[in-house]
Amino acid sequence: MRRLKTLAVIGVGLIGGSFAMALRRAGAVTGVVGYDRDSSAMQLATELGVIDTAADSVSEAASGADLVLVAVPVRATAAVLRDVGISIDAGAVITDVGSTKGEVVRTARNELRERFARFVPGHPIAGRETSGVESANADLFRGARVVLTPDEATAADAVELVRGAWEAIGGRVAVMAPEEHDRVFAAVSHLPHLLAFALVSELAAREDAAELLGFAGGGFRDFTRIAASSPEMWRDIALQNRAALLEELDRYGAQLAVFRALIDKGDAPGLERLMNEARTSRESLKPGMRRGSPLE
Amino acid sequence: MRRLKTLAVIGVGLIGGSFAMALRRAGAVTGVVGYDRDSSAMQLATELGVIDTAADSVSEAASGADLVLVAVPVRATAAVLRDVGISIDAGAVITDVGSTKGEVVRTARNELRERFARFVPGHPIAGRETSGVESANADLFRGARVVLTPDEATAADAVELVRGAWEAIGGRVAVMAPEEHDRVFAAVSHLPHLLAFALVSELAAREDAAELLGFAGGGFRDFTRIAASSPEMWRDIALQNRAALLEELDRYGAQLAVFRALIDKGDAPGLERLMNEARTSRESLKPGMRRGSPLE
Repeated sequence: MRRLKTLAVIGVGLIGGSFAMALRRAGAVTGVVGYDRDSSAMQLATELGVIDTAADSVSEAASGADLVLVAVPVRATAAVLRDVGISIDAGAVITDVGSTKGEVVRTARNELRERFARFVPGHPIAGRETSGVESANADLFRGARVVLTPDEATAADAVELVRGAWEAIGGRVAVMAPEEHDRVFAAVSHLPHLLAFALVSELAAREDAAELLGFAGGGFRDFTRIAASSPEMWRDIALQNRAALLEELDRYGAQLAVFRALIDKGDAPGLERLMNEARTSRESLKPGMRRGSPLE
Repeated sequence: MRRLKTLAVIGVGLIGGSFAMALRRAGAVTGVVGYDRDSSAMQLATELGVIDTAADSVSEAASGADLVLVAVPVRATAAVLRDVGISIDAGAVITDVGSTKGEVVRTARNELRERFARFVPGHPIAGRETSGVESANADLFRGARVVLTPDEATAADAVELVRGAWEAIGGRVAVMAPEEHDRVFAAVSHLPHLLAFALVSELAAREDAAELLGFAGGGFRDFTRIAASSPEMWRDIALQNRAALLEELDRYGAQLAVFRALIDKGDAPGLERLMNEARTSRESLKPGMRRGSPLE
């Protein structure tokens, strides 16, 4: 990729900060300007050398940048894109890191209008259990999958610039339609989060919750780790990806009903067969993957 | 506890082997005799110094022992207890490590008959992702919860001997009724395993399973780790604890229906409230717990 003169990061947290640090280390950017509605985050980012300049507004940050990375909670995306759209140069490129893509594309079309062709929707599959720019690091995206979901209207050079940036910092880029992205992540991320939230909230509401949890072992702990994720973020993801998530929930409910019937009937071979299919499939997952986070 | 002259371990695997090693290190036992239907496991256990003597049968191992630890798959429990019952001394004590307790107690009552008062049902909440005596270690139970579920007919001195043995090797012993045990572990262990098996088996059956799993992140990985557990073991646990597990499944299904309705209605505050309850509860779990295993 060509070296960027200025990267603008809107939302200077774990993801935005790590992206800036990694691009800088890769020698792919000269200057980084940041904006965050939390001024202390910007101050910290400046002190840590993650950003060179703290802007006073989204517009100020985006103005003059070659690439604008929007790394804010999905519910803030519309307002941010509106300000970015009116302030960027004609040749600049915008991308985001949101966990759902269909809704983001609809929002971007509305808010960016004639600049919509410069927007490349993105989703890096990386994160940590910590958040904030203080946790940012230049290795966060090394080996991580990054999904880009350009529209037919998206400019090819914009897609290539964003792809190049992710690849420069170790990302493994895949391109798919927004609907396909949302279907895939409903299955492998949004549904599991919902299932974990449902289990723990059900147990937590019981009178003997403390006793129950006192006997929870490592298996329970791993299974429910994602239930400690940000409720605000997952509320938004669940509602933004509602259609795909409801479909996944219904498929899952049907499978759970199959398991229930096998147990009820005492069908040992049937139960073992399904469990075996699960184990074989689970074991095929490559080991050593980075532990996940609310940001997936 | 008084020092044991001879411990008999029936089933020389991870749990049985670790129990023997830990008791020996604690100076709580003089000799260990082992029996396993897999003769190579016994040979390895002898080479590793986990057992002193390899017996040719369950009866031979149990004969003359002060304490008999039954650490075999639950489906083998009946046959093992039958042989133990006819061969042990009158004052000897028997215990087990099975993950379900109601069914084990019923089996023990049938098989041990007049020796039933000497049987102390037990369940150590410990394990690893590995199995076999080669993975055994004397620290496995340090800090682990151990549940004992004696019957009204169980001799008090037998309970105290088993409690003393677990405490000597670092276990934190709790006593409860078998039905209570099965209810608690249906909720915090058996149900989560079933939910994970159901999720992975459903995804695995799809045509695009490989693509889906290729985008799975660390959250999915943790959530589904328990789906790589032994299908034989979990098939047996699910069927042995059928009543409690079906009740938990139905409670869970009801909670999932609540989540589904909130998403369907777009009820953001309701969704966030439940997710918050889950997060608060999940965060109350003590950190640093040992990672779990199929043996929980």
